Amino acid sequence: MSALKPAPIAVSLGDPAGVGPELIIAAWALRAKSKLAPFFVVGGADILAEAAQKRGIDCPVIEISEPAETAAAFARGLPVIDGTSTAGAAARYTPGQPESAGARMALASLGEVAQLTVSGRASAMVTAPIAKAELAKIGFAFPGQTEFLANACGVSERDAVMMLAGPSLRTVPLTVHCAIADVPGLLSIELICHKARIVAAALARDFAIERPRLAMAGLNPHAGESGRMGREEIDIIAPAISALRQEGIDATGPHPADTLFAPHKRASYDVALAMYHDQALVPLKALDFDQGVNVTLGLPIIRTSPDHGTAFDIAGTGLADPGAMVAAIRMAGEMAARRTGS
Amino acid sequence: MSALKPAPIAVSLGDPAGVGPELIIAAWALRAKSKLAPFFVVGGADILAEAAQKRGIDCPVIEISEPAETAAAFARGLPVIDGTSTAGAAARYTPGQPESAGARMALASLGEVAQLTVSGRASAMVTAPIAKAELAKIGFAFPGQTEFLANACGVSERDAVMMLAGPSLRTVPLTVHCAIADVPGLLSIELICHKARIVAAALARDFAIERPRLAMAGLNPHAGESGRMGREEIDIIAPAISALRQEGIDATGPHPADTLFAPHKRASYDVALAMYHDQALVPLKALDFDQGVNVTLGLPIIRTSPDHGTAFDIAGTGLADPGAMVAAIRMAGEMAARRTGS
Repeated sequence: MSALKPAPIAVSLGDPAGVGPELIIAAWALRAKSKLAPFFVVGGADILAEAAQKRGIDCPVIEISEPAETAAAFARGLPVIDGTSTAGAAARYTPGQPESAGARMALASLGEVAQLTVSGRASAMVTAPIAKAELAKIGFAFPGQTEFLANACGVSERDAVMMLAGPSLRTVPLTVHCAIADVPGLLSIELICHKARIVAAALARDFAIERPRLAMAGLNPHAGESGRMGREEIDIIAPAISALRQEGIDATGPHPADTLFAPHKRASYDVALAMYHDQALVPLKALDFDQGVNVTLGLPIIRTSPDHGTAFDIAGTGLADPGAMVAAIRMAGEMAARRTGS
Repeated sequence: MSALKPAPIAVSLGDPAGVGPELIIAAWALRAKSKLAPFFVVGGADILAEAAQKRGIDCPVIEISEPAETAAAFARGLPVIDGTSTAGAAARYTPGQPESAGARMALASLGEVAQLTVSGRASAMVTAPIAKAELAKIGFAFPGQTEFLANACGVSERDAVMMLAGPSLRTVPLTVHCAIADVPGLLSIELICHKARIVAAALARDFAIERPRLAMAGLNPHAGESGRMGREEIDIIAPAISALRQEGIDATGPHPADTLFAPHKRASYDVALAMYHDQALVPLKALDFDQGVNVTLGLPIIRTSPDHGTAFDIAGTGLADPGAMVAAIRMAGEMAARRTGS
């Protein structure tokens, strides 16, 4: 074990009209109880102070000028860096009422957090939720934060793999934001193998699972029942599993999806690979709602985020649960500690 | 309240090589603790006695000749009727090793149980699991027990609607045993409305829910996000919901499927209508494995079954959990009591 402490974790503000600011504050208040590594926020010092007051949490906002100042400030208050771009964004705290200035602030914070993490001045990044519709209005051209970050890291979008992780389950949807009708055509042996390799490598590197067990779901009911309900299991999924096993990856399946997420089955694998968005997200949110973390695998940097949106409908009411934000910061810290061997 | 006691519940044996016989025995042993109404089995007296011995349960098998003898015998042992067709089926107890004679016995038991229930001599029927592959070998021409029972009741197969019910969730898949690629083409306004009407009527009649709240899932991720990921929500599901609401049915949605099964959302409806098999079965089995009941709505008779298969791999080992069988028998008894007003 090295005595090297990882650099602090950088947290992006998210849309200031969403639940991001108050959940960052709430997570800071839980830092000791939840054993969170020191983190700082980029941008929005005034917004964070107002969010703390509204949430009724005594959290001094401490402006710092360098990530390295985080550790010293973290016990007393929430360290915040105002970057060059965030300083210029004149956003106000208007919970539940998104504005263009807020979207610009969210984007500036995200961009600076990414730069600090890519350059190694932050050991990991955690992103608070943004509103894609608001960002689109100001010209943001990416489908989401994940694709933006792949680009910022100089990595192909197809190498950035979304994993959802909660206390009960880790799962990866192999296709994500597409219509169900398009899923069968998008699946290929090559796609499954490519993403499965990234997942296996990341679980070994960042989750200390030496030989991760990957359970592959079928696409069709009962995994197709020997071709009686669809042939994708026979033509695509099973051959991909064979190829992966030949490379030494412990992949199994295709498993019928309906039983794959039952308790006794969950104990038999480290991650479930799902064929489409809801096959992964339905069980994750049914089992681990308010605690799910979205981890981007396949990037050179560590990036996590709470698996929920801006929740404009409850922003500022005090109802938003900080569980997922806390879990995202904790996971980022654990992953960073493994990389530095601390 | 009438003082009329409902007739007893008829239970089919299921495949004698599966977990059915031992779970019927285990349910009988739990009859007092689980408040089960009196039930009898059709066929397999010797098999049930052997299963009891193997499972280590002291359960005398009491042969009766009429359903009406059930109530008197039930406290002392498991009442079993050997019907004309089951008496001729020379099946042995070979747990884990399905045989043709066992499949014939399972089918004979199912047929006689259906007759007794349709004629009113049983107030409800509970079916133990069969093996479709084994039944197909002896010429069984139905996709499953549900379709067989629709036929036995003189009802169209499309009027028999499968609902899965557990302690956490009631859910109905609107399409069932078909490939995912075929689901978009199978959905129609007419199909959704037809099945939703059956569900609403059944929840009112048999589950004492005066104005049931039906939550309709979207087909695509995020319920299509205003058509960006598929148009089925706009073209089919939303118009079906409008039509149902005009009829006075409390249908809502389309809801994004990923959050529909989270705890706070489950509290907002009485039943979730899913667009395909795994959208319903994944959350049900993730949340309520070993306790899920399959109820057939839309038949003139009451029919439930445990939501699991024959589990040949663990039959006879004592590992099979009786939770779903107990829940199926209890639910059948509760539904029957409501119909008789007892």
